[in-house]
Amino acid sequence: MTLPSIGVTAGDPGGIGPEVVVKTLARARGLPEAAYVVFADPRVIAAEEERLGLRIAAQNWRPELPPEPGIFLDAVPGPAGPVISGRVTAANGESSFRSFETAVEQARAGRLQAVVTAPISKAAWALAGHPFRGHTEYLARLYPGAIMAFWSDKLKVALFSHHRPLGEAVAAVRKDALIDFLRSLRRGLERIPGGPFRLLVAGLNPHAGEDGHLGREEIDEIRPALEMAFSEGISVAGPFPPDTVFLQAQGKKDTVAVALYHDQGLIPFKLTAFATGVNVTLGLPFVRTSPDHGTAFDIVGKGVADARSMEEAIRLAAAFSATGS
Amino acid sequence: MTLPSIGVTAGDPGGIGPEVVVKTLARARGLPEAAYVVFADPRVIAAEEERLGLRIAAQNWRPELPPEPGIFLDAVPGPAGPVISGRVTAANGESSFRSFETAVEQARAGRLQAVVTAPISKAAWALAGHPFRGHTEYLARLYPGAIMAFWSDKLKVALFSHHRPLGEAVAAVRKDALIDFLRSLRRGLERIPGGPFRLLVAGLNPHAGEDGHLGREEIDEIRPALEMAFSEGISVAGPFPPDTVFLQAQGKKDTVAVALYHDQGLIPFKLTAFATGVNVTLGLPFVRTSPDHGTAFDIVGKGVADARSMEEAIRLAAAFSATGS
Repeated sequence: MTLPSIGVTAGDPGGIGPEVVVKTLARARGLPEAAYVVFADPRVIAAEEERLGLRIAAQNWRPELPPEPGIFLDAVPGPAGPVISGRVTAANGESSFRSFETAVEQARAGRLQAVVTAPISKAAWALAGHPFRGHTEYLARLYPGAIMAFWSDKLKVALFSHHRPLGEAVAAVRKDALIDFLRSLRRGLERIPGGPFRLLVAGLNPHAGEDGHLGREEIDEIRPALEMAFSEGISVAGPFPPDTVFLQAQGKKDTVAVALYHDQGLIPFKLTAFATGVNVTLGLPFVRTSPDHGTAFDIVGKGVADARSMEEAIRLAAAFSATGS
Repeated sequence: MTLPSIGVTAGDPGGIGPEVVVKTLARARGLPEAAYVVFADPRVIAAEEERLGLRIAAQNWRPELPPEPGIFLDAVPGPAGPVISGRVTAANGESSFRSFETAVEQARAGRLQAVVTAPISKAAWALAGHPFRGHTEYLARLYPGAIMAFWSDKLKVALFSHHRPLGEAVAAVRKDALIDFLRSLRRGLERIPGGPFRLLVAGLNPHAGEDGHLGREEIDEIRPALEMAFSEGISVAGPFPPDTVFLQAQGKKDTVAVALYHDQGLIPFKLTAFATGVNVTLGLPFVRTSPDHGTAFDIVGKGVADARSMEEAIRLAAAFSATGS
């Protein structure tokens, strides 16, 4: 196999993204062998190295050459003035958006096998005129089957819906949409090492509806969708009571729990895999991972940001890329 | 203080209730000193002692006498024929209902300070003509401010709503109902040792609505309710993102997380306190606890039922009774 090239975007320049990227890549000798390509404003990375007393010593990336192990930089110019840290600005939003967009373009062109994204600020993106809730929503526009999932050795969760009000999420639990989702999830998981994966689907209502006494969606929508998916050869079971399905899935490497709404999946994932969980977008022609935390504007510049989730995101991207996907 | 009298109902005779009661009370010397009064069909307890090779050696309860430490039995006659195990029957439903009702009557009359309930079958209660979803719903009819809560050293959770379809639970998140709930919760917690307790309230929507971008309930209903409750001296904060509030509450003995719907609270509670969690009904004039599991018809008679949650329920009932409440 060829050496994977893995893009790493530094995220919002005013958040902790640059810090966790520099902390992780400064210890690159402990990471899987790859060409790690940082997409960022070079000034931001240099300032972060200076502040942390760490060096990633990136060389300029030349994508036309065959990949070599090491750390590279694809310079994405940032704002003209000084970089403002610790708060939402349009300039930082534009900078993080352009870094991400550039990395995605390189991945779509086949020059990167994976993109690891440090956290951006949705508010900063909005100020800069990029009305996406986040990386996943941007990718979902390019790839409508994209799925937000969360990955750790302890628990794997895929979300049927994510950033929408809970009332809307309940109304969206419909048979046809669920079948489409399960098909996309199966395809998305085919490229992931460690499979084939078994899907355990949570119910929507308490006790998975208790035979209709606590809600009809399990009977009218979910069960028929699972039966159809199963008949197509998808390894799926459920719907299970939401308050025990994650216990069932815990610790099983080949099992993915399917959550029907954001917090149904994120509550158990964060409790189980806090600090080392990784956000994965499935269903793309390349690998995309990111740490499971935000910009954390309140701790920027203090050097205290926990880089474990970023390190896990990079390790997972390398592992997923190494299978030749 | 006087010795507490603690009622223990054996639950559905065909479930694992009798087994976990006998297993726990057979080791009563390790439990807090109290008069433990079992409410059950004597045949069922005797058969369980025989099957498990354990003796609880209960004496007949005489509530008119001052309480003494030990194990007592208040005989609640069961069905005329043989007791059927491992499945739902009307006779077993009638038996478990009568045991519970009798214990509650004794508690309301002041002859018990606490009632610990082994699991019943809702379906069996329904067959017997008692259309309650469970113990909590029965108690809520007598005491409309009754609150379902879950208790462990690791996490404490109170549920704003519980056994209703998720769509209805979303619609029920209204300012006035939430204020009433917080007032009842404050009163219910006043009698519980370990306080005063701080309440951390979860939002309803992902990221607690993210300033209205992911739902309006936090702005229109929840925040106004919390402000009103706070102005009344209730120690309450929120709404917090549902996927991190339980992490915030974990390990803090004087903190109760408030969940707005069943699975928002039960998913984190079961992950955090599996096998030792205790269900507590707050807002009654007596203490009521129960193990955090069901009748488990599939493992009845095998002797493998885990009695830890029942033991914790009994210990908690004793601890809550001992404060003279």
